[in-house]
Amino acid sequence: MIIPVEWTEEGVKMLDQRLLPTEEKWLMLKTFNDVADGIRDMVVRGAPAIGVSAAYGIAVGVKNFVGTNVEDLEEELDYICEVIGKTRPTAVNLFWAIDRMKRTFQKAKGEGKTITEIKQIMIQDAKDIHEEDIESQRLIAKFGGELLDDNSTVLTHCNAGALATGGVWGTALGVIRGAVDQGKTISVYADETRPYLQGARLTAWELLKDNIPVTLITDNMSGHVMKKGMIQAVVVGSDRIAANGDVANKIGTYMVAVLAKQHGIPFYVAAPLSTVDMNCPTGDDIPIEERDIREITHMKDIQLAPEGISVDNFAFDVTPNEIVDAIITEKGVARKPYTESLRKMFEEN
Amino acid sequence: MIIPVEWTEEGVKMLDQRLLPTEEKWLMLKTFNDVADGIRDMVVRGAPAIGVSAAYGIAVGVKNFVGTNVEDLEEELDYICEVIGKTRPTAVNLFWAIDRMKRTFQKAKGEGKTITEIKQIMIQDAKDIHEEDIESQRLIAKFGGELLDDNSTVLTHCNAGALATGGVWGTALGVIRGAVDQGKTISVYADETRPYLQGARLTAWELLKDNIPVTLITDNMSGHVMKKGMIQAVVVGSDRIAANGDVANKIGTYMVAVLAKQHGIPFYVAAPLSTVDMNCPTGDDIPIEERDIREITHMKDIQLAPEGISVDNFAFDVTPNEIVDAIITEKGVARKPYTESLRKMFEEN
Repeated sequence: MIIPVEWTEEGVKMLDQRLLPTEEKWLMLKTFNDVADGIRDMVVRGAPAIGVSAAYGIAVGVKNFVGTNVEDLEEELDYICEVIGKTRPTAVNLFWAIDRMKRTFQKAKGEGKTITEIKQIMIQDAKDIHEEDIESQRLIAKFGGELLDDNSTVLTHCNAGALATGGVWGTALGVIRGAVDQGKTISVYADETRPYLQGARLTAWELLKDNIPVTLITDNMSGHVMKKGMIQAVVVGSDRIAANGDVANKIGTYMVAVLAKQHGIPFYVAAPLSTVDMNCPTGDDIPIEERDIREITHMKDIQLAPEGISVDNFAFDVTPNEIVDAIITEKGVARKPYTESLRKMFEEN
Repeated sequence: MIIPVEWTEEGVKMLDQRLLPTEEKWLMLKTFNDVADGIRDMVVRGAPAIGVSAAYGIAVGVKNFVGTNVEDLEEELDYICEVIGKTRPTAVNLFWAIDRMKRTFQKAKGEGKTITEIKQIMIQDAKDIHEEDIESQRLIAKFGGELLDDNSTVLTHCNAGALATGGVWGTALGVIRGAVDQGKTISVYADETRPYLQGARLTAWELLKDNIPVTLITDNMSGHVMKKGMIQAVVVGSDRIAANGDVANKIGTYMVAVLAKQHGIPFYVAAPLSTVDMNCPTGDDIPIEERDIREITHMKDIQLAPEGISVDNFAFDVTPNEIVDAIITEKGVARKPYTESLRKMFEEN
């Protein structure tokens, strides 16, 4: 059972995903700045895991507050949230967690709680966010698992596994684990996912641990394996889903979705409702992070491209809702038109 | 001016493309076995360059023959061709060059030439193959260059440049160089092309040398840049074209072609007629090489995937003729239906 981030009395314990699959090293992050750095530097990644980590980062920051005045704590909280909010722009779970933690503070403040009580309440709320996240994934696994046929092979892109969430199930890998849990035989093709290789390093590692058959391919092979009839479904996670069902996810997801459409293969997105941004009307409104070009030009110290080369490093792309066959959430399976089906899920919340 | 393979009195001089872009090292290959190893181990790669190298490899093998009997030389030639023919299965130029060199031998033998004369004739024929290859690329550059609009941005996959041919122009990069030669302003997006990174290492290096603006992206970004309207044409090379116009090329080409179709972007293939295999009715008849999985699991000594992971490493894929907008050869631009247009080009030969 993989749980990549944990609350401890000492601080936030985080599995350093940058070192996988060759080394399993845990970091102890004792300040909110440490946690912000961990999110920015991709010690932890994946939208739900970023949400949980942000909540814990705020909790550890609040816990470390040494003043005695609630107004000062509020000012500190604003600053903490500002720092954490600047780490990764695309994953909406980050902002969702910040908003929720701020609301929890306001409620406690409004009820006249003491500093000590507020600290306890906020730590508890971060833990609740984590638990709710795992429970959401359990439900996503259940609903999504029902969509997969027995004896089918599923293609996934990037890592939307336990490592990308609060742990245990994962979103896209949750759907696969859910199907296996329901007694189905499932094989997986994992895109390696350049430049950061979350597929090769993380998805392959997770599924090997779970004894789920997995074959690694480069990103440019997914069209070929679809054409050869080797894939029966595609399941991916998401970093942000717009109100109309447009899906931002790891760069390359859009290509996989177009190819799936071309080959009549269902394309499923698995994500908790905390990934759905009802304030974002369409995918065009989702900011797309661009990252350091060194991720592409180098592999550790090995230079892969000529000195002085111009590089674009878009971290995400947007898949239009028309080619998304279903969005699997903890409330069930949303289908087109998503503007209605997603809104309905929030109303039921 | 880049010429990656050359005939010298000492042997076949080859630029070691495995070391690019950080090191420009030339190897001197003095036996046909050295040349065969060079082709297999990808010192040289790219269908036309493999053809030229195979011809030179045969020439060096014949030159090194120490016997005095033409029948013994014929036996040796058969053995040389068998060894060279086993290096890479997909590039048809390899077999084209072997056939031509064998025919040249038979003609000289039939004319009663001496061993010394036969050696000279075969060395000259290998040099002719090289010169004809460069001349073919010059014509491909001219015809293809006319298809590109001024001020357009072209996406290319893998390296179909001077490095992939006898030199100077290249096929896909020849088309780009041809357009630039015609006074057009052209920018290039180069897919890095996993796992061997021919785009990052070779295409980027070539175009930087020629001062043609080039931006490197990972393979999974090409859909995104097309969707954003940043690409006006796609040009790639080929390792083998079937008689019906199905195109085998570097893995990932098929995905790029489907995406180009989806976005209304013309998809062009540039290749000399020596790449067209009229004995191969369709793409289904083209053997697809699978290479060592270590190309995917490791980058030099850096381990990228967990120990024991299953990996598929398809080196090529097939793009169906329906989504190929034109095949640019030294005889002009072939259009659908290719069964007719390609046959006509051979008849004119």
